[in-house]
Parts: sequence; structure tokens; C-alpha cells
Amino acid sequence: MSKPSLLILPGDGIGPEVMTEVRRVIDWLEKEKDISFDVTEDIVGGAAYDAHGTPLHDDTMAKAQEVDAVLLGAVGGPKYDALDFNVKPERGLLRLRKEMDLFANLRPAVCFDALAAASSLKHDVIAGLDIMIVRELTSGVYFGEPRGVFTEGNERVGINTQRYTTSEIQRVARAAFELAKKRNGKLCSMEKANVMESGVLWREEVQKIADAEYPEIETSHMYADAGAMQLVRAPKQFDVIVTDNLFGDLLSDIAAMLTGSLGMLPSASLGLPMANGRPKALYEPVHGSAPDIAGQGLANPIACILSFAMALRYSFDMGEAAALVEGAVEAALADGLRTPDLMTVEGGTKVGTTEMTDAILAKM
Amino acid sequence: MSKPSLLILPGDGIGPEVMTEVRRVIDWLEKEKDISFDVTEDIVGGAAYDAHGTPLHDDTMAKAQEVDAVLLGAVGGPKYDALDFNVKPERGLLRLRKEMDLFANLRPAVCFDALAAASSLKHDVIAGLDIMIVRELTSGVYFGEPRGVFTEGNERVGINTQRYTTSEIQRVARAAFELAKKRNGKLCSMEKANVMESGVLWREEVQKIADAEYPEIETSHMYADAGAMQLVRAPKQFDVIVTDNLFGDLLSDIAAMLTGSLGMLPSASLGLPMANGRPKALYEPVHGSAPDIAGQGLANPIACILSFAMALRYSFDMGEAAALVEGAVEAALADGLRTPDLMTVEGGTKVGTTEMTDAILAKM
Ligand SMILES: CC(C)[C@H](C(=O)O)[C@@H](O)C(=O)O
Ligand SMILES: CC(C)[C@H](C(=O)O)[C@@H](O)C(=O)O
Repeated sequence: MSKPSLLILPGDGIGPEVMTEVRRVIDWLEKEKDISFDVTEDIVGGAAYDAHGTPLHDDTMAKAQEVDAVLLGAVGGPKYDALDFNVKPERGLLRLRKEMDLFANLRPAVCFDALAAASSLKHDVIAGLDIMIVRELTSGVYFGEPRGVFTEGNERVGINTQRYTTSEIQRVARAAFELAKKRNGKLCSMEKANVMESGVLWREEVQKIADAEYPEIETSHMYADAGAMQLVRAPKQFDVIVTDNLFGDLLSDIAAMLTGSLGMLPSASLGLPMANGRPKALYEPVHGSAPDIAGQGLANPIACILSFAMALRYSFDMGEAAALVEGAVEAALADGLRTPDLMTVEGGTKVGTTEMTDAILAKM
Repeated sequence: MSKPSLLILPGDGIGPEVMTEVRRVIDWLEKEKDISFDVTEDIVGGAAYDAHGTPLHDDTMAKAQEVDAVLLGAVGGPKYDALDFNVKPERGLLRLRKEMDLFANLRPAVCFDALAAASSLKHDVIAGLDIMIVRELTSGVYFGEPRGVFTEGNERVGINTQRYTTSEIQRVARAAFELAKKRNGKLCSMEKANVMESGVLWREEVQKIADAEYPEIETSHMYADAGAMQLVRAPKQFDVIVTDNLFGDLLSDIAAMLTGSLGMLPSASLGLPMANGRPKALYEPVHGSAPDIAGQGLANPIACILSFAMALRYSFDMGEAAALVEGAVEAALADGLRTPDLMTVEGGTKVGTTEMTDAILAKM
């Protein structure tokens, strides 16, 4: 049997640094566990713009379509802020999501015991927090047409279109219900059905799937503004949250921040099954490219390492290896090791990017 | 000189109860301070639907256009959830905002000393918090066309349109810059210019106004997802935030929740000056209709009373009377009085809606 293939796209900012650490985890697995991958590497985002004048070269796009999984670091940075909208680093990432049809973006927000104190929220509000946000990732206002900046008389007009079809809502809802089934059996869907017709359709379609296919799941609906509030007030009331692309962008960032561990959170973006049965998949840390600390050996590699662990679990059915990596991360944290982003917690030992991985590998 | 006119729209849920308390404050001002208003009352939201089959009767709309200020309680409730989109209680409120052209929605998020402990956030993160969110209220995805649920082949499609013009952005930006000038001279504008062209236009136009008209204001820009995060992580970094209708809906709710005092927060929605120089204006508490506690004498009247205080200040130039009301609220809280929503704070004295107002009036 041929090895599973993995395309690594480090991207910009701290992306390359954290990806170097993931490579060390991959090497360890090959050496110690005889688990090996066919790894290729390419560029995306600002790095691709610098090399090719586009944030995602067609050849890279084609490779991404062929591999079993893509692992991406981060894209963007102030250097590219003035670029034209269509060649911004973000467009590379958005093109990957869209053309690979990665409609279900899984963003777990888990509060690590060792780090609960790093949250701006009170301990009892977030201790033990474990929620999963499922964000629709290939439609909505991110991709709807018409879009652009137009001239009308003396005025410029900026337009974007929020657009969802029945089947787009159904497929992401099913993905979320399936997760709720494996977790605590609760799903809350969020939109603004009181203001937006696209939200009315969203709510109706989610409820239909609930009634017809998942009667055993406790399904509820919340307006997204109330949802944002409740995430801040009492996040542990949630199990799985399903929401659209734009609300998901904000709500998952709030959820991530609650845990006090932005540098810790992975994500998986999943699409339809390929011929080999594996879903199209892209894994990336939730944190951005953090240009302010890039290149200084300060970045926290954990989110990217845990994104790779998600790949082991969701793409390669290697739950055991995934658990090994995740357990090692928890153990390193329990030992008090802290990259600078985690140093709001009292009493840890400050380490850099490499030492953190050293510790994780030692625990493995 | 004729008395200034005030239209009171109690609306649904706890709206009527809290408005009764505002009436007591109005009566007190008339008796003790010889400040009097020409007050009329009408219905809106579910109440109007029950009476007229529409959430806002044309006569009520016409009255709202004529008065110096409108004071609204809250609209909506589960009773109306199944109603057709176009007659939902919310449509009444949205019609008022749109037809009165109330483009600048001011939502102060202030953490009252006496209540800091009620927040789910740590004390030092929110103690002394005082930020002002300025939300565009008459455009964006709330009102853009085309909108609706359509059929395309076998699919239903839900569509809404995010749409902003130069002049819409400019006028709300100016309102926000003026506030920043009177406050701490800092303004942060939030959008998703990395993903949405309407955000690109927003950012450009805000920056133009900054450069041309407010060089003394420290102006910055943030993506709305990062903004949501930063509100949770370190809200005191902000002074004035300006953002669009939909982002403003979520971000202002987050900000409100930070203070631990949702039942405390007022809002003002301001439009263009009328013939008498006063701006078109509607004042409303940020909390909703809270149907679960309606009619039980448990509602916190403070947000609605403080909304009336905002009316005194912004519509009637009665800063002194506004300060009198605000001071009395603080004093009542400092005495330990707490409606049930505030009872997460240890050691307060639990009171109902009426007793809270009794205490405020006594302090005045
Ligand atoms: C970088 C950006 C395009 C992206 C998004 O808006 O989706 C990011 O914020 C995210 O959440 O993955
Ligand atoms: C009730 C609803 C229409 C409204 C909105 O979405 O604007 C509310 O959430 C608000 O923030 O005032």
C-alpha cells in the first residue's frame, strides 16, 4: 500500500516556524512508530505572492486536490496589507477552501486545565470547557455574487451577497449532527432569522434535518448576537454549535479566546469523500500569522501540532497516534512549560518554539 | 415655548413594566424640577401585531416622525416566533430605525463598580471599563436588496445583500469621530476587509475621514473577528468602536455582556437634525423583551431609565437632569440593591422592579 500523502503549506509569519516543529513530530512517528507519510511542501499566501504574483499558484491548487490531506500554517501580514483585494494572501486560503469544497470547518474550543488561569474569564466559567464549533466554510457572504466596489453617480458602493442553498445548509448540518452524536448529543444552530431571510432558511433546514434524521439530538436555535453573548456568559451550556461562514468566523474566535489558549487551538476543514474514501481535508491552526513575533523562535507550535493530530484522526483513521500526540501536549503543559503567549499563567517555565516541541516529543 | 414631545412605545415582554418605571422618573422630574414633556404612548412589535396585524401601524410611524424623541421598551417573544418574516415584531423596530433614518446607534458599555463582580470576566479585565460602540443602523445586510427566500430548481435559496455607500459610511464615521473627540480621542473601526469588498470600502472611507477631518484622533482598523477576540481578551484597549449594522449587532452584545450588567445598558439611535435642530432619535435598552420573566415584577428597570437619561442628554440638552438620574442609579447600586439579574454579585439586597425605582427616586 502506498503511503498516505500530505501537502504542507507553511505560509507566512509564524507559519514556517510552527510547521518545522510539526515536521519533527512527523519524523518521530516515522522513526518510532513506523507511521510514515509522503510529504510534499509548497507555498501559499504572501509567500506565494512574492514568488508568483498570486497567493496560490494553479500547480499548488492541483497538488492540494490530489493529496490525502493539506496542512496549512497561516497566511497574511502587514507587508501585504496594501495589495489589491484579489491577490491578498487570504485569497489563497479562500481558494483552497472553495475549490476543495471544504464545507465543514471543525473548531474545537477546549480549555486545557493547565491553562485555565490564562483566560480573561473566571475560572469556573471556563474550567473544563469543551465545545465544538462547526462553521460552514464554502458559501455565504464569503463567496456570494454579486460582490465588489462599484460606482453609482457620485458614490462608491461596496456590495457582498449572503447566499445559502438548501443543500449547502443540509450538508453542514449533517456534519454537525454527526459530531453531536459522538459527543454529548446537543446541537445549537445560530443565525439571525429575525433579521435575515437567509437565516430563516438556515433555521428551517436545520430543524428539518433534526426532525427527520436526528430526533435523539437535543436541537436548539439561537440568534447569533445572543449566541455571542452566551458564549461569553456561560459557554459550558453548549456542546456542538453549527453556524454559517461569517458568524462562524466571529463566534469561533470568541470561543477560542475564552480558552485563554489561542496558540493551542487546531481546526479541520472537511469536504466530500474522495475515491479512496477519505474526505478532502485541510488542517490549520486557528491562530493567524502573528507577524509581530515571527522569526524569533517565540511562536507556540501546539495549535499546529494539534492540527496535525486532527489530520491523524479525521483523515488517516489513526486515532491512537492522534491521542499519543494530544496526550504529550497535555503532559508538557502539565509540567509547566509555557511559550510566551501562555505566560499570563503564573508559575510556568518560559520556553521557545523548539523547546516546547522537545518536551512534547520527550513525552511521546 | 411648547413642551418637548416624547413618544413612548413599551412594546412586548418586560417592555411595559420597565416603561412604567420610566414614567415615574418623568413624573418626578415634572413635580420636583419643573421639567415636563408632552408624552404620548402607543404600541409596537407583538403588541401592535395583536391589535392591528402589523408590528408597526402607519399612524404610529407618523407619530414617531413628529415627536422630539421616541423611547422604546423591547419587542418580540416566543408567541410570535412562528409569524411570517414580514410581520414579526422585529420588523416594527427595523421600520422605525429605517424610516426615521437613525444611522448612528450609540451603545455605551460601562462597567459599574458595584457590579464588576457580576461579570463572567476577571475583575481587572473589566473594572473601570467604559467604551462606546457606534453601530451603523440603517443599512448593510439588514436592509440591502435583493433579499428573500427563492426557489431555484429543486433548491430553495436564502439571499441577503450587504451594501454600503460612501455617504452612509462617512456619516456614521463622523458621528463616531465626534464622540471620540469628546472622550479619549481613540477610534477603532471594524470590518472584514480581508474577505469582503464592502469592508474594503468601509476601511478606506473611514481612513479618509480620519486623515481629512480628524487628524488628532488616534484611528485604527481591526478585522471584526479579531475585534470580537480583543473585546473578550482586553476590552479596555478600546475607546470608541465604529462598525457596520451586523458586526455592530454582535460586537455590542459582547461588549454589553462583558460588563455583567445587560439589564443596565441603554442605547441611543440618532439621525439627522430636524427643523428644531434636535436630531431624530430613538432610545431603547440593549436588553430584549425577556419573555421568561415578563409580568412578574422582576425586570431590571435601569437600562430603560438610563435610556431616558440618554434622551435627556442627546435630545433635550438637559445634561444636568441626565447626570441626576445617572448618579441616582449608581447610588442605588452602591447601596447594594439588586434586581434578580444582578444577584450573581454576592451580598446584595434582592429587590423587584418597583423597589429599584423607589430607591433611584429617593436618591434623586
Ligand atoms: C484569514 C481569514 C480569511 C480567515 C477567515 O475570515 O475565514 C480567518 O479569519 C479564519 O477564521 O480562518
Ligand atoms: C431585535 C433585533 C431586530 C435587533 C437587531 O438585530 O438589531 C437587536 O438584536 C438589537 O441589537 O437591537
